[in-house]
Amino acid sequence: MDFGYDQTTARLLAELRDFMTGWVHPAEEEFERQVREAPGRWEPPPVLDRLRAEARRRGLWNLFLPGEYGAGLTNLQYAPLAELTGWSPSLAPAALNCAAPDTGNMELLARFGTPQQRERWLVPLLDGRIRSAFAMTEPAVASSDATNIATRIERDGETYVVNGRKWFVTGAMDPRCELFIVMGRTDPAAPVRRQQSQLLVERDTPGVTVRRGMSVYGYEDREHGGHAEIDFVDVRVPAANLIDVEGSGFAISQARLGPGRIHHCMRLLGMAERALELMCRRVAGRRAFGGPLADQGVIRDWIAEARVRIEQARLLVLKAAWLMDTVGNRQAHTEIQGIKIVVPAVAEWVVDRAVQAHGAAGVSQDTVLARFWARARTLRLADGPDEVHRQSLARRELRRHGGDARRV
Amino acid sequence: MDFGYDQTTARLLAELRDFMTGWVHPAEEEFERQVREAPGRWEPPPVLDRLRAEARRRGLWNLFLPGEYGAGLTNLQYAPLAELTGWSPSLAPAALNCAAPDTGNMELLARFGTPQQRERWLVPLLDGRIRSAFAMTEPAVASSDATNIATRIERDGETYVVNGRKWFVTGAMDPRCELFIVMGRTDPAAPVRRQQSQLLVERDTPGVTVRRGMSVYGYEDREHGGHAEIDFVDVRVPAANLIDVEGSGFAISQARLGPGRIHHCMRLLGMAERALELMCRRVAGRRAFGGPLADQGVIRDWIAEARVRIEQARLLVLKAAWLMDTVGNRQAHTEIQGIKIVVPAVAEWVVDRAVQAHGAAGVSQDTVLARFWARARTLRLADGPDEVHRQSLARRELRRHGGDARRV
Amino acid sequence: MDFGYDQTTARLLAELRDFMTGWVHPAEEEFERQVREAPGRWEPPPVLDRLRAEARRRGLWNLFLPGEYGAGLTNLQYAPLAELTGWSPSLAPAALNCAAPDTGNMELLARFGTPQQRERWLVPLLDGRIRSAFAMTEPAVASSDATNIATRIERDGETYVVNGRKWFVTGAMDPRCELFIVMGRTDPAAPVRRQQSQLLVERDTPGVTVRRGMSVYGYEDREHGGHAEIDFVDVRVPAANLIDVEGSGFAISQARLGPGRIHHCMRLLGMAERALELMCRRVAGRRAFGGPLADQGVIRDWIAEARVRIEQARLLVLKAAWLMDTVGNRQAHTEIQGIKIVVPAVAEWVVDRAVQAHGAAGVSQDTVLARFWARARTLRLADGPDEVHRQSLARRELRRHGGDARRV
Amino acid sequence: MDFGYDQTTARLLAELRDFMTGWVHPAEEEFERQVREAPGRWEPPPVLDRLRAEARRRGLWNLFLPGEYGAGLTNLQYAPLAELTGWSPSLAPAALNCAAPDTGNMELLARFGTPQQRERWLVPLLDGRIRSAFAMTEPAVASSDATNIATRIERDGETYVVNGRKWFVTGAMDPRCELFIVMGRTDPAAPVRRQQSQLLVERDTPGVTVRRGMSVYGYEDREHGGHAEIDFVDVRVPAANLIDVEGSGFAISQARLGPGRIHHCMRLLGMAERALELMCRRVAGRRAFGGPLADQGVIRDWIAEARVRIEQARLLVLKAAWLMDTVGNRQAHTEIQGIKIVVPAVAEWVVDRAVQAHGAAGVSQDTVLARFWARARTLRLADGPDEVHRQSLARRELRRHGGDARRV
Repeated sequence: MDFGYDQTTARLLAELRDFMTGWVHPAEEEFERQVREAPGRWEPPPVLDRLRAEARRRGLWNLFLPGEYGAGLTNLQYAPLAELTGWSPSLAPAALNCAAPDTGNMELLARFGTPQQRERWLVPLLDGRIRSAFAMTEPAVASSDATNIATRIERDGETYVVNGRKWFVTGAMDPRCELFIVMGRTDPAAPVRRQQSQLLVERDTPGVTVRRGMSVYGYEDREHGGHAEIDFVDVRVPAANLIDVEGSGFAISQARLGPGRIHHCMRLLGMAERALELMCRRVAGRRAFGGPLADQGVIRDWIAEARVRIEQARLLVLKAAWLMDTVGNRQAHTEIQGIKIVVPAVAEWVVDRAVQAHGAAGVSQDTVLARFWARARTLRLADGPDEVHRQSLARRELRRHGGDARRV
Repeated sequence: MDFGYDQTTARLLAELRDFMTGWVHPAEEEFERQVREAPGRWEPPPVLDRLRAEARRRGLWNLFLPGEYGAGLTNLQYAPLAELTGWSPSLAPAALNCAAPDTGNMELLARFGTPQQRERWLVPLLDGRIRSAFAMTEPAVASSDATNIATRIERDGETYVVNGRKWFVTGAMDPRCELFIVMGRTDPAAPVRRQQSQLLVERDTPGVTVRRGMSVYGYEDREHGGHAEIDFVDVRVPAANLIDVEGSGFAISQARLGPGRIHHCMRLLGMAERALELMCRRVAGRRAFGGPLADQGVIRDWIAEARVRIEQARLLVLKAAWLMDTVGNRQAHTEIQGIKIVVPAVAEWVVDRAVQAHGAAGVSQDTVLARFWARARTLRLADGPDEVHRQSLARRELRRHGGDARRV
Repeated sequence: MDFGYDQTTARLLAELRDFMTGWVHPAEEEFERQVREAPGRWEPPPVLDRLRAEARRRGLWNLFLPGEYGAGLTNLQYAPLAELTGWSPSLAPAALNCAAPDTGNMELLARFGTPQQRERWLVPLLDGRIRSAFAMTEPAVASSDATNIATRIERDGETYVVNGRKWFVTGAMDPRCELFIVMGRTDPAAPVRRQQSQLLVERDTPGVTVRRGMSVYGYEDREHGGHAEIDFVDVRVPAANLIDVEGSGFAISQARLGPGRIHHCMRLLGMAERALELMCRRVAGRRAFGGPLADQGVIRDWIAEARVRIEQARLLVLKAAWLMDTVGNRQAHTEIQGIKIVVPAVAEWVVDRAVQAHGAAGVSQDTVLARFWARARTLRLADGPDEVHRQSLARRELRRHGGDARRV
Repeated sequence: MDFGYDQTTARLLAELRDFMTGWVHPAEEEFERQVREAPGRWEPPPVLDRLRAEARRRGLWNLFLPGEYGAGLTNLQYAPLAELTGWSPSLAPAALNCAAPDTGNMELLARFGTPQQRERWLVPLLDGRIRSAFAMTEPAVASSDATNIATRIERDGETYVVNGRKWFVTGAMDPRCELFIVMGRTDPAAPVRRQQSQLLVERDTPGVTVRRGMSVYGYEDREHGGHAEIDFVDVRVPAANLIDVEGSGFAISQARLGPGRIHHCMRLLGMAERALELMCRRVAGRRAFGGPLADQGVIRDWIAEARVRIEQARLLVLKAAWLMDTVGNRQAHTEIQGIKIVVPAVAEWVVDRAVQAHGAAGVSQDTVLARFWARARTLRLADGPDEVHRQSLARRELRRHGGDARRV
């Protein structure tokens, strides 16, 4: 057992830290201004291009992707880098070409794509020339239960025909988002986990209508392409756009889950760390009732609680990454579910306490905090509400103890 | 002891319930659309005028105001009416001319205003022709400690000169908001609670600059006039615009607090009730994993918790109102602080659980929930963060037990 | 709506307060010593007799019992008196002949007993000459689900024959406890809520074996007769010992529930108030790290939280009592369940914080706190774990909102 | 970074697991019976001797002690072994000669003792022939603030004279406990952390009076020697009994803290794991309301929460152990304080949920749970209440962020 970082990780962390300090954080103000001053614009603001060029120059590019197409890091190696990007979640992941949902889509194409699909889509994505989205959630059903998914994908000769409505398709409001990976039902009669397939749908295919951007606690998230509601009406795409084989949609989703969780969770911990730092500085510099806020016992209590929650959560994420690397996703199931349950709640709590310590400034546009909070809160719902994962984790625990629990 | 409503309250509740059902709730969609489709507009949307006329016709007007100028209800009588308006907090209070901060300002003018001040400002406010704001919070200091307030109000012959910056001046982005009541320091050398005064400043006075609207978790709250940041630079107003006497600013604030708390808290409980109803309906109608969400034990647990928290909180508010009516604000201090501590937290929790039960819809613009949440969350900071009130309540409790120790 | 006490209540409160201060609290030390120094003894210590005589002399006797046999108070009138007795829960209720489970048993006999049963049992109980117990819980099944109860009561000519094992029969270790009211199944084929009956069983009936005292977090509760495990093997009692009619056991239990809940909950609030007082005095008088503990923000936060939780919980209990008095148990169902959910948890929390503020003394025999805690904790299980009541309350709430919830 | 155990640890874990399964758990019932049936006896029950002999035979002896005198394991290696002993905390640590407070005392003697002190006391302790206690806490002051300690140790020629009262001296009721290590003030005029010294005092020294056993939530803990209150009145011991030098008492305490925390915390996690297992088995085998308790969503929620809290807490303890081994106690300060804050609270919570799932059995003597709970709860106070450590951890965190503020 050893809790230290290896050399590769340590080297990349140093490089990334330098980039964050020298380039990313100094650009935040301009970034925010560019977003604010272009109300109708869904593309990321221009300042990002400069950051992307510099990141690439430093070798901080596609770090998330294992194997030949990417940087070749393990999950355990990438995890602390992802955390660091979470300190500036609107800029840093995008600057490094490591932003969701493109990361998951690139992994999927690298792993399950045909050579043609990889050539057509993976190459420009790796190069940062286009963006992509993942259309999974549906407004009309509880889509955390995959068997509820209503969107149909039907074979008709050499094409597939898609019908359905998706929403919260993150990134899809950005016109540069050219590719939608759509999850739908190909065979409603198949066993529950073999009914779905995933299909590549180009944005400009007839029948595709991007209807509106969904907001999240008042935020449109224009800076990373928003969250679109999209109608698919008799949308026809070539049969060659299918990913893998019919009926593999659910299994592919599961494969995609593990690394995505690690990334999301580590970024959230980065946000939590930044919120904690902001809180510490705020309370050290603000006075009320005869002394700095930092002397208030209750605020100190929050700080201690924040520190121990973050430390524990990070260790659990790192262990989950290590298990994925050494024994595989399946054996890491409890830990992968565990971090989904734990980390967004920790981040939400820490950020909320930082908001409280900032008073009115905390809820406003003048700090990153309210926005961070909305991200953390939303991740308690994204890819399934906490409760679904908690029930599932408990079932496994009950089985482990010989419990005669009903299979659900 | 008797937990039933008196006849006046019961009659007005029935009338108001009828108005809510027949007029307010049906208008919500149009209201939202009018707000959404007029992005630069800070006035309330036109649909409100229709509601105001009808409310007035029904005698549902200025119900909040005791005494000759208003409906003459006690705090205990008005409280359940306020709760009902909380079911539609953007429309109903405004429709009834019972919206903050105008309510507090009208009370203040009715109670402390000179005949001239009342004639000039109270009359059009009671009539709903203009709006007003209360400029208290400052960006540069922790203004929950009133002794921190930095804005200066200095006498210069027959005028007062105001210098300072205020923010989160609710309602002040609305151009019809013609009056700002400004809290500032007149005598920094006086005893701590005699340093501040309150002054009536007209919006168009030279030196007043409304700089920008502050956002709250991404919401600009344009529908009720936003939250302005305002600069006061050498702003000169006639000496007759002073409220009461120099040095009474703090005492007036305290007097204003009690009823305002009752109103805010009851409206929050109305929001919580609506969120609970939405949650119950959602989970009854949504299915996952083989049954309605309403069959999930964890969700039922939230519902039970929501019910018992709301019931308890409401009783505490009603008791605070009764104490204010019977023994006065000072004797009701613990209860008035208690409801500030309890109710926003209860409402926040209930609404958050309703969000969770709604999944993505809960965080979006398609339900009232995310917006309700932001309101409840903000009230844990408004008129002093919870923590200030908790420390103060505890000090009083400690004093109460300061006598001879009973043997244990 | 009126939150003040009526004259009868105010008068009795004053009398009881005087008795608590002058007689009960001064006797606590002797009481504890007598318990400690008689290790094998299950009767209450002798000092209690003196208190009982004085209470009776003052008219503070059988206050809990409405109607002709008792003091004739309403639930709402008795509630604050019960709270006051909770300040000294081992002495005061017993001194006033208002201790559970005798209270519930007396109510039951007064309401459902035949003249012969009342003469034989109710009279000496009202007179305080004997004690009684209620044998409901069983070790082998989850008896919070009444349909699980396995003890059989079978008719055989002019007798009933009882077979089964009960435990946590409070008071039954006291040899003066001469009567056990036993809940058992008379007709397993009847509808679920008509299967059970209640039967009066004398302690010295052949086949009755009191096996052992159960402990509660290390406490044997000898001072109020412990919690017995009792075997009933072919125990024969006259058929005339049946309460009411066969099959009414469940309904009678429900009738018994309401007032018992009010009593338990109010006593718990009394314990919580005493714990809060002890905490305030402790922290005022104890110094660490340069000042009294009372200056620690976190401790003040507990004190504020304790105060607002107690206030809210008390109001809910009082409202439940008022509803029982005015519209009956059935209409007060939500409130009666609500107080079961809320009050033990509040008391547990307040007492636990008082323990923490006392350090090692708090967990030891040198304060009442650890013992209070065990009482409060146990009441989260007694007459059904919290969770059962929460699920049930939620079902009713779902129905109220038209939810299509499955009936459970 | 590597989350796997090394070979030594894995081998010892297997051996210990075998011992627990084959010897310890089967002996629990007899152990409990022997304790119960010898009410006045403070020595551990005889069955323990058999276990100790077997443990020694297997090489499972003094595993806690690094260096030449013990098994030579690192903290990281011993930690998982300590967790395993926590499954049976009254038997296993004692069987392995790894029970507190002897472990800390042995460490102290091994590290700071003179050859004579080691010969006289360490050898028989390592051999398990005698026991020892640590007299630190005092009833009259908040001794978590070491500067409050009032016991005096004064030099008088070739002797030291001790005066003071200590309590909660764990193990000291056992007559075989021959040695008390007493913390007292030698120089009240010295700098705060140089005022205290530690002194070896034999049990039978004149002036030493063991007054009584303190109870903990009704438990006397006779099976491991109770918690004594001890008076020291003009107790004279040879000057050679001083540990290290005068004024080093505080520093020695700090050195002792780290490993003790690891042990305590890992044992608590063992208790939590056992409680979780008991809960899973209970709810799988118990039925109510139409199915096993294991189907109740709320109970599943507890199980999931228990699992993720335990996993996180364990990782934090292991990291703290690793830091102590690699960079030393001082650098591990945050983690050592972190586990003190986190682990007792986690264990308390898990055990409490297991109690609730067991109903009445959970609070009684028929399961280990209520007793486990009392241990966990007490450790939130032992060696300083949580709050002291939280404030201290927060101060360090605040200092860490004391540098230049990054722009937000």
